[in-house]
Amino acid sequence: MTYCLGILLNDGLVMAADTRTNAGVDMVSRFRKLHVFENPGERMISVLTAGNLAITQAVLTQLEEGLDGEGAESTLYHVESLSGAAQMVGRALRNVKNRDGDHLQAMADGFVASFIVGGQIQGRRMRLFEVYAAGNFIEATEDTAYLQIGESKYGKPILDRVVTPEMDLTQAAKCALVSMDSTMRSNIAVALPIDLLIARRDTYRVATLQRIERDDPYFAMISNQWGEGLRALFDALPAPAWLDGVNGHD
Amino acid sequence: MTYCLGILLNDGLVMAADTRTNAGVDMVSRFRKLHVFENPGERMISVLTAGNLAITQAVLTQLEEGLDGEGAESTLYHVESLSGAAQMVGRALRNVKNRDGDHLQAMADGFVASFIVGGQIQGRRMRLFEVYAAGNFIEATEDTAYLQIGESKYGKPILDRVVTPEMDLTQAAKCALVSMDSTMRSNIAVALPIDLLIARRDTYRVATLQRIERDDPYFAMISNQWGEGLRALFDALPAPAWLDGVNGHD
Repeated sequence: MTYCLGILLNDGLVMAADTRTNAGVDMVSRFRKLHVFENPGERMISVLTAGNLAITQAVLTQLEEGLDGEGAESTLYHVESLSGAAQMVGRALRNVKNRDGDHLQAMADGFVASFIVGGQIQGRRMRLFEVYAAGNFIEATEDTAYLQIGESKYGKPILDRVVTPEMDLTQAAKCALVSMDSTMRSNIAVALPIDLLIARRDTYRVATLQRIERDDPYFAMISNQWGEGLRALFDALPAPAWLDGVNGHD
Repeated sequence: MTYCLGILLNDGLVMAADTRTNAGVDMVSRFRKLHVFENPGERMISVLTAGNLAITQAVLTQLEEGLDGEGAESTLYHVESLSGAAQMVGRALRNVKNRDGDHLQAMADGFVASFIVGGQIQGRRMRLFEVYAAGNFIEATEDTAYLQIGESKYGKPILDRVVTPEMDLTQAAKCALVSMDSTMRSNIAVALPIDLLIARRDTYRVATLQRIERDDPYFAMISNQWGEGLRALFDALPAPAWLDGVNGHD
């Protein structure tokens, strides 16, 4: 399993991904799911991956080395726009499907893969896309400033409550970590370390790329503070009047 | 969509269910999903339903009127134990599958249904079960005191954080409502009104059965207080030192 999310803000972009890959519960590994294609000052594109690792690695190879049969110009280092980058991920994915799709189906494995593509190229807008297994894609807008792939539900309530395009990058990074923490608490197939990237708008480079390891004191602190705060908040909620006396020991 | 949950505590049982049923988004209705089979002072059994409404109604009819071909003794009013009740739900479900399963499959509709069965019969233990579409079932234990069916993920984090068998019935009811609120916020296919049932251990009767309507002032209050509290809690979390200066406007 996997949990990745991207948040597009007025100030820039926050991308986060866990690193756990598993085939069943007896084959658990660690793989990077947050990838960066950067020419600092000219472009910064980050790709997050979820799904079948053989598929996502085959897509990444094409994004780095060129789409099948199209040569070295067809990489994320040469693409002219972010929507072009999302299209390129979709085309790479369709190339993999053409080659491996029938074989995967024959083994009763689904063709499962999805991507978040975010970043900015000099002279263009900063944008954030989600690419589906079919190779088509959607874009984040000011109404929905974040996109998620993988195990998205446990970490969604906090995003729905606090994410707005106006929040600053630090707040958004903190929100991404709280969302990750909620997910990891309810699904052991999502796990530390977490990769977290921040890019400021109109800088065309990575501002911060941080790997948060298992023993990270900051993550442990917000995880504890969040958990204890939730319990205190819950305890402070009043009980309904129509439950007076229902405990039977008042 | 649906969200139902049952919580088994040392003090008794809390059962909750929403009431929204939809076939697509242009056919939205309201149906009770929380059902009570009670002979006050002798037995209280509550059944929560999720899935295809034709299937769950066909199961409930058998639980009230007798399993197919087995006469009036085979109802939840006559079953001798709670595990027998869970088995009876499974058998009713298999009867429906035998009759309708091939027809549903022919229409490319899956056989989707699940149930939570909780309660107590005089002289027996209070128990809580989840019955799967295959008709088999699991039981809640002190390690996992709650069971969920339907859209379970959005409302699970709060349960994981606060539910223990030692919590009192009022706290558990409050927790069920917060869990419902989180779910409804992230999935519009789960909606008010909510039915909420409380039964104290060794009373063999319903203590409270409350329908929480759209304009319920208590629910609106905890929904607001929870949302505002979460945002305040989030704002109070410190930012990581490694993000100092990343906002670019400090």
